[in-house]
Order: sequence, then C-alpha cells, then structure tokens
Amino acid sequence: MSSHAEKAAHNLALVREKRPLVHNITNYVVMQYTANALLALGASPVMAHAVEEMEAMASLADALVLNIGTLSGPWIEGMRAAGGVASRRGIPIVLDPVGAGATRFRTDTAVRLLDECRVTVLRGNASEVLAVARGAGGTRGVDAAHRVEDAIEAAGELAARRRMVVAATGAVDHVTDGSRTLRVLNGHPSMGLITGSGCTATAIVGAFCAVNTRALEATAAALAFFGIAGEHAARRSRLPGTFGTALIDLLHAIRPDHVADEARIEA
Amino acid sequence: MSSHAEKAAHNLALVREKRPLVHNITNYVVMQYTANALLALGASPVMAHAVEEMEAMASLADALVLNIGTLSGPWIEGMRAAGGVASRRGIPIVLDPVGAGATRFRTDTAVRLLDECRVTVLRGNASEVLAVARGAGGTRGVDAAHRVEDAIEAAGELAARRRMVVAATGAVDHVTDGSRTLRVLNGHPSMGLITGSGCTATAIVGAFCAVNTRALEATAAALAFFGIAGEHAARRSRLPGTFGTALIDLLHAIRPDHVADEARIEA
Amino acid sequence: MSSHAEKAAHNLALVREKRPLVHNITNYVVMQYTANALLALGASPVMAHAVEEMEAMASLADALVLNIGTLSGPWIEGMRAAGGVASRRGIPIVLDPVGAGATRFRTDTAVRLLDECRVTVLRGNASEVLAVARGAGGTRGVDAAHRVEDAIEAAGELAARRRMVVAATGAVDHVTDGSRTLRVLNGHPSMGLITGSGCTATAIVGAFCAVNTRALEATAAALAFFGIAGEHAARRSRLPGTFGTALIDLLHAIRPDHVADEARIEA
Repeated sequence: MSSHAEKAAHNLALVREKRPLVHNITNYVVMQYTANALLALGASPVMAHAVEEMEAMASLADALVLNIGTLSGPWIEGMRAAGGVASRRGIPIVLDPVGAGATRFRTDTAVRLLDECRVTVLRGNASEVLAVARGAGGTRGVDAAHRVEDAIEAAGELAARRRMVVAATGAVDHVTDGSRTLRVLNGHPSMGLITGSGCTATAIVGAFCAVNTRALEATAAALAFFGIAGEHAARRSRLPGTFGTALIDLLHAIRPDHVADEARIEA
Repeated sequence: MSSHAEKAAHNLALVREKRPLVHNITNYVVMQYTANALLALGASPVMAHAVEEMEAMASLADALVLNIGTLSGPWIEGMRAAGGVASRRGIPIVLDPVGAGATRFRTDTAVRLLDECRVTVLRGNASEVLAVARGAGGTRGVDAAHRVEDAIEAAGELAARRRMVVAATGAVDHVTDGSRTLRVLNGHPSMGLITGSGCTATAIVGAFCAVNTRALEATAAALAFFGIAGEHAARRSRLPGTFGTALIDLLHAIRPDHVADEARIEA
Repeated sequence: MSSHAEKAAHNLALVREKRPLVHNITNYVVMQYTANALLALGASPVMAHAVEEMEAMASLADALVLNIGTLSGPWIEGMRAAGGVASRRGIPIVLDPVGAGATRFRTDTAVRLLDECRVTVLRGNASEVLAVARGAGGTRGVDAAHRVEDAIEAAGELAARRRMVVAATGAVDHVTDGSRTLRVLNGHPSMGLITGSGCTATAIVGAFCAVNTRALEATAAALAFFGIAGEHAARRSRLPGTFGTALIDLLHAIRPDHVADEARIEA
C-alpha cells in the first residue's frame, strides 16, 4: 500500500460522497455505457449537446467531459459552447481526442478545443496523444497503432506547453503534467475487447477531477480505480459480453479499501 | 390480488397478444435499452426521428413515445411532426420530459409539445413534473432532486388542466388524471442504478396505452409490471451491470399471473 | 462437414488474422452492440458519419457498412460521400436497408445508395428486400411481415439487375448473386428477441467481405458464423438480456473448427 494508493482510495470515497454531476458531450457508441459506468461508480451523469442548452447545462456541472468520437459540426459547436462556460467557471474539462490522427477533421477539432478551452486533462491512446502533440499524423482508425512508450516524450512536451495533464493510456498508463509523471500499472487486456473502455476511463477521470483539484493525482487515481475494476471483472469472465457487464458491476462494488490495497501507481 | 392487479395482468396479456408498434423519438443514451425492453416485453419498437418520414412512420404506429433527453433542434421538429400526426390519428402519445427544469430549453420544449400535441400521459420524476407544471424551475440535472410526495399536488393540477394522465414516479409512483389517483408500490431501488430506467418505464407505458384506451389504468399497469420485473431482477443481482441485463430478462419472463399476484396498485 | 463449411471456417480465420477495419455508418440503436460484435469477432470497427471526414475515414477502411435505421438528411450525405470513396477504392460496401418499405424516405434512400454506389452485398429481411426490389411497398415498421420464402425470386432478380449479392435473411437465409444461391440454415429464434441482430449480421458480412472478394461465399460464411454463435448462445440462455450478452461472448469464443463442424450452408 503506497501513499499514492491511499490518496486514490480517498479520491474514490470523495466521489461517492459528493456524487459530482459530470456533463458529457460524447459519442453515440459509448453514451449508454459511459452513463452506466458513472452511475455505477457513484457519480451523476448528464448527456447533453445542443448549443441551445450548453450555457445552462455546463453551469450545473461539476466537470465537463468532451469526447470527439462520432463527431459532426453541430456537436463541435456544442462542445465549444460548453467548453467556454466550463473554462469561465473553472470546473475541470477532460478531453478525449478519439481518432485524432485518423482524420484531419478530428485532429483539427481536438487542437481547436485545446486552443479555445482551458482543458484540465487530455486522455488518449499513444496514437491520439502523438497526433494531438504534432497537430497532424495518421493512425489506424481509432486503434492504438503506436505503443504507449512511443508517446511518453510527446505527452510530456504537450502537457508542459498546454499547462495541462496528459494521460497516455495503454498496458501501462503514463500520466504527466510535464514535470511530474505517474505510471499506473493496473488494468487488464480484456478491457481492449469492449468498445469504449478508453472513453469510459476518460469519463471516470472527469468524476475524480471534479472532487480533487490536483489533476495529476486525480487522473492517476481514476485510472488505477478503473484498472482495478477491470482486473476483478476479468476474474469473472474473459469473454467480452459478460466481461463488459461485470466491469459495470465492479465499478459499483470496488471500495476505497480495495483501491488502497491494489492500486499500483508509481512516480 | 386486487381488481387493479387483475386488470394490470390483463393489460400485459393484451400487449403480448397484439404486439403494438411503438414509435419512439427518444434520447441516444437509452435508445438501445428501450428497444430491447419493448422487444422483451412483447411489443414492437421502432426508432425514427427525421421529419421527412414522421408522417409515414407515425401513421403506422399504435403509440408514440416522445423523450426529450439529448434534445436538439432537428429532433424537436421530428417530435412536433410525429406528435401532430399521432394527435390527428388519436393514438396515445406519452411524453417523458427528461431534465425539464434543468435547462429552459428542455422545460420550454416539454411545454410546447404539450401545447401542440394531444398528450395522453406525461411521465417524469418529481422535479420534472414540477418543472412542467410551473413552466420553469431548476433541478439537479436529470436527477430527482425533489421527493415524489412534493409533486403530487402539482401533478393533479397539471393533469386536470391538460386533460391528461400525469405519472410522477419514485419510490412510490403516483398516477393521476386530476380526479382519480392510483398509487403503484412496485419497484426496487436498484432500478436507480441503471441509466434510462425512467425512460424505459415511459416506453412501456406507451405499449400498454396502445392496447388500453383507459390511460390511467394502463399507466398504472405498465408501472406495476415494470416494478415487478425490477423486484425479480434484484433477486438475481444488486450490482448494476448484471441487474440491467436481468431486468431485460424479466421483462420477457414475467407473466400475467405474476402481475395478478404481485401488482401493488392502490386507489 | 461440407466444403462450404470448410471455406466458412477459413474465412473466419482470415478475419482474425487480418483484423479488417470496418467503417460503419449505422443507426443509433445498434451502434454500441455492432461495435462490440465486430471487436468480439476480431475485426476493427470504426463509427463515423460526418461528411467532413468521410474521404479520410473511408480511405482507411477495408469495408464500408451502410445502415439506414434512424436515418436523417446529414447522415444520408455522409453515406453518399463514404460510398463514393469506397466505390472508387473498390472496397466492399454492404447495405442494410432497415425499414425500407415502411416509409418512402427509407426506400428511396436505399435505392439512391444502390444507384450511386457500387454495393457489394444488400442484406435485409424479406420485407426490406421486397421493398428495395420493387422500389416501393408497405411493411409493418422494421418487422419482417413477409416470410423469407416470399422474397427469393425478387432477391434473385435484384441481385442480377444490380450485379451484387442479396441476402434475404430469416429462419433460413437465402444468399444469391442472381445465378447461384446458397442457403444458410444456422441461427436461433432467440436472435429475434434482441434489437439489432439483423444489423449485426450486416456488419459481420462487412468484415468477412473485407477478407474474401468472393462476396457470395463470404456472405454465407458470415451468416453461418453468426448463426452458430446464436445457437451456442441460446444454450446458455433463452432470455433476451443474458442471451444478448452471451451472443457477444460467443462471437469471440467460436473458433474456425466450430464453423467447419457446424456450418450448414447448402447450394
């Protein structure tokens, strides 16, 4: 049990106590799973994207999660509007640049959101982090064509330049603010067999950042918690349908004392 | 076994016999779960929202369900078009004012649909019913910030004024047409752990109203049936992933004789 | 074990080896389930629909799947743009005309996509195939009001006229290119209890066509594989919630040797 693990356990307890309202503008594929994951965890999800209600909705929220999968023009306008309100209010904004690098539309949108909003955490796989860091590139769709080790340097530079936390996730998650880096070793390969596990990680990061302003620590805590849930779920099933269901169960069942015992977070 | 329970059992048998086509214009988060719930129950779901096909689709339907979660301009136009056709044809329209009160956009849209369409049943939590009744308000996102008891009087006045049935659901569901009220005591707290359980209740109300023109009775029957399914599902699992899957199973497995024995509907 | 079954087994092995990127423009209801099915199978799904990125996304893909459920104007433009790129690149295009015949909007869109794109396979139920073949008609929503036997002749003529493969699926699947026909006998009635099983079949056809240019054979192989997974899933549960989860499990667990032993494909 490390000091990082104890802090992570405390973060989870805080989420369950405060039940932060997490406003998600996310993709169609993962919307239901993400909402269920946040509910199971103990947070309060809301999904809304219309520019007409972004001012009101983003004003109620404790965190904003922007996810550019299944992107289109009207959704970008919703993201920009919500991001503007969240930036002014100073609530955490977590950005998931799904598929950045696969198309210029996605890379450009991610960069534009970074330019216009005060993003707290960017979470992506290696290819996405590299694409956002370079402002261009080509990946294999939404897959992780690069290994996470390839993105460590770019993640650090991007974090320092943008004054945010960057989490490049993979077999090991690297979380950096440009000067300090935490490595999270929790997780299980079966998580790659269900759609939206990365997007769910991002949403959980939003919930943790809503209750802890130290974003580096909150992000590592969220990823460790999610990874522990994945490890437990994999003990129930390695097949993707039942694994995906078990993962939601475990997001509810994992307690702070599990996190204190099992989180593997290293400086 | 009460007379209300026997009627509810008969309503379920009618849904399974007639397999009503329920046209849903609903939110992205719950679309798959709602369709699966209606199929499991024995109804025939269709999801369509484009204004170009609302005339044709609403002409085929036996009931129309309007749900304003993840609302946007084009979807409002689809709802208005479908609601117009359904009003002229005299098929039941069930409205779920998701998040009314959280944003003016949602409250105004709910009120506008009530003004323009002949809504048969409005189903919401206490906060949503209060917001629609007052035409304004502020809730905690899509959560039920108010207890259902707080909404009883407003529900009755709204029902009388709009000549419709209002179902304010919570630990106990209150279903009223302004002069008569039925209380439904079935249900389980685990239903609050999955996203869209309220939206699913609304869709099931649509299926029951399609086969029974007595909307007060049909709504109470639908809510009792859904609550019984939730009670049985909770015996299989209290964890949200497996509970949500079991709930779909039970919507298929609960028979009219279960409803006759277990429905708790009080005048 | 027939020669067709052996070929089908080999097709499955090829999908798992090559992990084709399947670009889906599909409906909101089934998007998550389809993505999970493709991942479980061993393919690589991407969902994207905005016209701004269709050139780029369709250029990365190994197959394109177009599905007209929950259709709207902007999505038609995305489908046309992606279909144009895929036609020029010569990658397989699989079209699912969900609800064709139910509304003119859907029938017309399906016919327009056939006119403008080089569609490789059309997969639908009997009503949808008849509607597309006739360019008009009336079905009961998205249900199969006609038996598949009613659509065999129309499927053959449509396939010959459009120089594509037509799969009219039902209790028995008929797959034809206008001169040759394969019948696939695998499958289980429980598959009709979950939403989007037809749409999932279409997506799996896309994955198989990506690795085998003989579209008639690849389509029959995909449908046999999906049917075998359904048969195994039904041995675990006949209730729709757990059946749907088990079906995803089986898409992952069914091996080529299962397909070689159990595929029932007849000339």
